[in-house]
Formats: sequence, structure tokens, C-alpha cells
Amino acid sequence: MTTQGNNLDRWYDSYAARTAGLAASEVRALFAVASRPEVVSLAGGMPFVSALPRDLITGAMDRVMRDNGPAALQYGSGQGVPALREHILEVMALEGIRGSVDDVVVTTGSQHALELVSKIFLDPGDVVLAEGPSYVTAMVVFKSFQASVEHVLTDENGLVPEALRERIQNLKAAGKRIKFLYTVPTFSNPSGVTLSWERRLEVLEICRSNDILVLEDNPYGLLYFDAPPPRAMRSVEEEGVIYLGTFSKTLAPGFRVGWALAPHAIREKLILANEAAVLSPSSFTQMIISEYLSTADWKGQIDIFRGVYRDRRDAMLLALHDYLPDLSWTVPNGGFYVWLKLPDNIDSKSMLPRAVKELVAYTPGTAFYADGGGRNFMRLAFCYPTPEFIREGIRRLSTVINGELELLNTFSLTGPLETVRPELNNISPPANLG
Amino acid sequence: MTTQGNNLDRWYDSYAARTAGLAASEVRALFAVASRPEVVSLAGGMPFVSALPRDLITGAMDRVMRDNGPAALQYGSGQGVPALREHILEVMALEGIRGSVDDVVVTTGSQHALELVSKIFLDPGDVVLAEGPSYVTAMVVFKSFQASVEHVLTDENGLVPEALRERIQNLKAAGKRIKFLYTVPTFSNPSGVTLSWERRLEVLEICRSNDILVLEDNPYGLLYFDAPPPRAMRSVEEEGVIYLGTFSKTLAPGFRVGWALAPHAIREKLILANEAAVLSPSSFTQMIISEYLSTADWKGQIDIFRGVYRDRRDAMLLALHDYLPDLSWTVPNGGFYVWLKLPDNIDSKSMLPRAVKELVAYTPGTAFYADGGGRNFMRLAFCYPTPEFIREGIRRLSTVINGELELLNTFSLTGPLETVRPELNNISPPANLG
Repeated sequence: MTTQGNNLDRWYDSYAARTAGLAASEVRALFAVASRPEVVSLAGGMPFVSALPRDLITGAMDRVMRDNGPAALQYGSGQGVPALREHILEVMALEGIRGSVDDVVVTTGSQHALELVSKIFLDPGDVVLAEGPSYVTAMVVFKSFQASVEHVLTDENGLVPEALRERIQNLKAAGKRIKFLYTVPTFSNPSGVTLSWERRLEVLEICRSNDILVLEDNPYGLLYFDAPPPRAMRSVEEEGVIYLGTFSKTLAPGFRVGWALAPHAIREKLILANEAAVLSPSSFTQMIISEYLSTADWKGQIDIFRGVYRDRRDAMLLALHDYLPDLSWTVPNGGFYVWLKLPDNIDSKSMLPRAVKELVAYTPGTAFYADGGGRNFMRLAFCYPTPEFIREGIRRLSTVINGELELLNTFSLTGPLETVRPELNNISPPANLG
Repeated sequence: MTTQGNNLDRWYDSYAARTAGLAASEVRALFAVASRPEVVSLAGGMPFVSALPRDLITGAMDRVMRDNGPAALQYGSGQGVPALREHILEVMALEGIRGSVDDVVVTTGSQHALELVSKIFLDPGDVVLAEGPSYVTAMVVFKSFQASVEHVLTDENGLVPEALRERIQNLKAAGKRIKFLYTVPTFSNPSGVTLSWERRLEVLEICRSNDILVLEDNPYGLLYFDAPPPRAMRSVEEEGVIYLGTFSKTLAPGFRVGWALAPHAIREKLILANEAAVLSPSSFTQMIISEYLSTADWKGQIDIFRGVYRDRRDAMLLALHDYLPDLSWTVPNGGFYVWLKLPDNIDSKSMLPRAVKELVAYTPGTAFYADGGGRNFMRLAFCYPTPEFIREGIRRLSTVINGELELLNTFSLTGPLETVRPELNNISPPANLG
């Protein structure tokens, strides 16, 4: 029996033990703040959907309703619309993945695939390995099934294989049951870093030899800015990887359509879990996306998104270079995020109210650690604001950080500010920022 | 550690204990059978969406994309679109419910509300009380969280209060933890019966005095054929009821939009669970429904659905009267289902392959019991086929049943066929059937 809620809650004693793990995330509270128009929000990871021509969607929708209305309005299969699953194979082929249409399970966004995988695998006390830092709402799901998240060190090339090996050894020695490694290997949320090809092979080998399943979450892989990233981990390993994809970033999140590509036996259980949870994902949104993929130049549209986000990434890197030259940050080659390291004595979470007062928002680093880490880091999302607003946001942020440093230098009882030691890749903006 | 799957599954030993409870339902296998066009399917509960004019949907969708495209394509709130939640209050008001827009949580169909409620309340070993018979996929969800379902006797007026009282007493005496009573009080799935007003009050009082939450699932309440049913249980009791509603039957299931109306403290946990599961329900489908409710004559459309289903109910009752006069069945005043009682020695599940050979399908009664009950019952859905097909389906069914009886009479080692004892309301078709 847990002691959730408070004395005003008549059902206080009735909640499941797992409900204790369901706390409001730091990111959640920020969505409210970030929605005020005067705030430059570098907090939420909202795709810039205005770059998608609306007539592409209304056209697809009108044709679906004209040609297939009753099917679009009806219940569908728990596995998803077959025609859409065929298209999903084409999408995954762009990242080197070959799979069977039978092994694709359509889900209500890839978030729901995380939930379903967790539901079928996680017992209380199980361990999930994850990058440090890792995607906040994945960790919320793992914890909601009473698993513990154990972080593995990452650097500018993603997960450090040696650290992974050691972590597994220690956890096994402590009698822990490791269910899977959760990873966003390409343009990670929140750090923006990408696991190198050599390391992908090494990480797969480590997991294989330790009987640990890999949960490869890849929402951003097609949104690269320069050279394409290494092929998906699923492209080299079929039986040991559950691969998650989504249309939220390459099309629009409002449809809530993502998918899992899973080994055959696991796929069967995912379908059953999906049916229990929602009967079937929305036929209506699946068929609109399927029609869009059949008729529109969807690869050209992804190129447009790439250009939009590349410009914003460049604007953010240049502004960081101009306004916060003493700090260090990651340089993502795709995706939505830069991971900024602050001086050691700054706590990004406690600084946030001052930032919002200065009309800029970000996500504190602690949101991305299950263990309290990331205190002097923050995630900066460049996906949504225009390049001009991004520059203005970073300018405001520099005012906040410099004010914080002054305050700390003036009042600190622990002596003068430590020297800033760049740790991740403190790299100057790429040459093309000219 | 569970022993899921088989030796071909490398992850055999990795599944969570709860995954053992995720088995394919009998209804699921039937969907494949029923989709063959030559079969008259009285099995699946698919709404007749063709009765919904498509231009109502395309019109709403075009306006949403024109006026609010970026919001419809974007992530939304974990609680759901505020304008839609306002409309949901209007819908619930038709059944006597007054609530706050703050206490409505939009879900991916009401099925997902069942999943979320179960996730936040059910620990392994907990008990859920449910009508006998009860909705199959609700029981799948409860079992997937390792709860056990205990049935309470029902008759033609729904749950029998005395049986409920006794069941609670016995379970408590056995040290069981009862988390909630799951009920479809109006036009029940599968039996079609409705809990009378007096019994609603009595059931609420029994649950209140035993600290048992009521989970009132009401997908069919607005689809009444004669007089309106009694007001929703939620209309008289606020703190002890979680109410579930859906647009799947009054509009279309392809959108996957339902909702929960919950006591304040519970609602907060439902939102957190919803965010973990899907981040937010689809903005796109929510906004289309909201626009539809703002502009279309949605009450008139529900009247159209009522007329369609009334005709089909009448066709089914008349056909049962004409072709199977010796059997007994329920007479629903709304919803989608008739519950047919067969002679005691017929097993509806083992008879199903013969029925499919005769090109008619139904759902065996055992699907609706967690304990093997319902062997000589079946659910007949009149929602989807035309009245002519329904009549033909019942004719085919009578052939199958009579053939089965002949076979049993000829070869039975247990002596002659028992007399058929009508149990539920073996009532002649209403006068308006002529």
C-alpha cells in the first residue's frame, strides 16, 4: 500500500505501488511557462510544423474520406494499417534497416511504444540502462513500471563502451536484473550527440554477449544537417534490437503515429499490449499519413525540415559563440538539441525562475538524469523559434548566466568561481557559419 | 521470472510477470473470420459509421486546418484540448452529469482510460468486481495488471445488489483487496441489460460504505431506442465514481477519442499516466471532433444512429422470435447487443467453427467471463449488418443450433436433452414489431 496524494484524497490508500513513480516532470511544468508569447522558449522540443504545407494534409485527408471513409472512421487492427506499415519499411530503409511488414507495430506516437515495451518487460526492481543524460519521458515510463534507470557515461561520440561494460558487470555483481539498454543513438535528446559507427558495433556486441535487449529510439535520424549519420543499430542486429520510429518529427506530432519494429516473438506481445491499451491505433490518422506518403514528395519535405533546423542550429551555435564564449556545448549534426555546460557552481534548475523573468526558458539538466546529475547543464532546443528569436534567447540567457555568476562571486561563501573547464566538445561554430 | 513464448524466443526469460496475462482474446481471433464478406458477422461490435455523412467530417477537418493548422499538427496537453473538454461536458449533461472541465481527461478511446485507471490503481493480486458477463477487453486490461476479476450476478435489471453485497463480504473475509467495481450499467456489453434506477442508488451505497470505487463505463447510453435510460451513476455520486465516455459510438471509433471524468485527485494522476503513455492524445482528431460538435447538428446525428440501431435490434428480435422460438434472450432498449441463452448442453465456443462454415459468426459467451462461465451463451451484435443480413444471420444460426441439438440428441451418452429453462428475460418482441 502506498501513501499517495494527501488527506483530501479519499482514494489515498487505493493507488497501486507503481503510482508513486508518476511525478510531474520538470519539462511538464515548463510547457506552461513557455507558452507565454513574450518568452523565447528554448525548452520544449516542439517540431516546427508550420514548415509543412497544409494542403498536403487536407488533400490526403479529403482523398482518404472520399475513397475509404468507412475504413478510416472504423476500428482497425491492433498492429496498424497494412499499407502504412509498408510505407514505414520505406522510411526505415533510408537508415539501412530491412524488416518485414509483419514485424512493424503502429503505436500512438513512439512514446506509446516505450510504454508498451516497458509494460511487457519491466518487473519492479528491474534495471534499464540509459545514456547519461537521457530522454526525460522515457525515464518517466520506466520508473512508472518500478524499474530503476542506471546511467552510462557518454561523451561527444555517445555511449562509452568501456563504461557500459563496467556498468553491466557491477550491476550483475550486485544481483540486478538488466532488462534493456535504452538509447537515442542519433542526435540524442537531450545532448545532440551521435553514437559513432564503431561504437554502435561495440555496444551491440556488449549487449549481445550479456543478453541485454537494445531499445533503439530514433526520432531524429532523418533530420541530419551535414553528412548522414551512421546507419541505425537495427540495420546490423535483428534479434537483439527493438527499433522505435515516429512521424512526429518528419511530418507532425498531432497525428500521434509512431511504430516499433521488433523481433517476431516480442512483436506478438506488443500487439496484444497495444490492443489492451487502445484496441487499435487511430485508423483515421494512419490512413491520412499513408495517403500522404503515397502521393506527396515526403523525402523533399524532410529536406525542407532539414534546412529549417540546420539554419536554427547554426543560429544557436553562432549566438552561443558570440554571447557565451567561455562556456562549452555540444555541436549536433542533426535533431533538435544543444547541451550546454555551465560553470560548476551554477544550478540550472534554481536559475530558471530568473531566466523566465528575463523572458527566456530552457530545460534544466537534472530533468535528464534519474540520479540528480546534470545540475550545471541545460538543454537548449533550437527546433521551434526562428533564428532571430534563438539569437535573442541566447542573448537573454547570457545576461541571466552572467548575472548569476556575478551574484555567486559576490556572495559565495565557498570562495571565488572555479575556472570553467570545457568538457564535452567545446568546438567553435562550423566554418559554414562564416 | 515467467516462461513466456517458446524456445524460438530469445527473450523468453525476460518478459515481465504481467505479460503472462496478455493472451489473445477470443474476440480477436473472430475479427479475422468475420471480415470475410460472405460471413454474416454478428460477432464484432463495430459501429455503423456509414450512417455518418462524410462531408460533416471533411468540412470540420478543412476548417480546423484552415483556422488552426499548426495547433492541430502539434503536441497538445496531456489532459486534452480545452475546447473539446467543454463540449464533453455538454455531452455528459444529456445523461444528467454535471462536472468541471478541469476534471475531464481526454484519452485515446475510452479503452485507454481503462488502461490508465488500471495502471494507477491495480497491484498484483488486487480484485476488480465486474458484472457477469462483462466487457471482454476491460477484463484483458485488468488481468494484464495482474488483478483478478470476480463476477457479480446480474439479471434483466443489471447487477443484483444482494449478490454484490455478499460477494464483497466474502472477498473481504478472504483478505482480498477490492480496488473497484467495473460496470457498464446502461445497455451492457455483452448482455444489453440496463441497471435500474433503484439499483443504481443501491449499488452506489454499497460501494460507498465499503470504500470501493465505481468505474462507470458508458459507451452506449445515448443510443437508446425507446425511453431514455436512467441517469448515469456519476450524476448522483461525484467522489466515488470514475466515469468513462467515448465518441466511438456516437461519432466514429477511427478517431480514438474518449474520456474520463474523475474525482480531482485521481484526475491528476490520470493526466500524469496519460503523459507517460502518449505525451498527449492526438490534437488533430480532438480538434476535428471539437469543430464537429461546434458546428454540426450532433444531437440530430445521434438520433439518426438511434434509428439505425433500433431497426436492427427489431430485426434481430423478430428473427430470433421466428427462427429460435424455444430459446431465451435479452431485449435491449439501446446499445449494440443481445445475449442469447442456448440449451445447457450446447457449448457455443465449440459450435463456432460449424457456424462459420454456415457463414454466420458470433462471440461465444465464455469470452465475457473470467472464470469459464457463459459456455451456453453467446453475444449477438446487431450494430453492423443491415436488417436483412441480420435476419439471414439468425436463420443460419438456427440451422447450426438445431443441427447441434440433433447431433447431441443422437450421440449424447448423457441421456436426452434437458428442457430449456428460460433464465434472463425471455420476452416476446415488443409490440411495435408488428
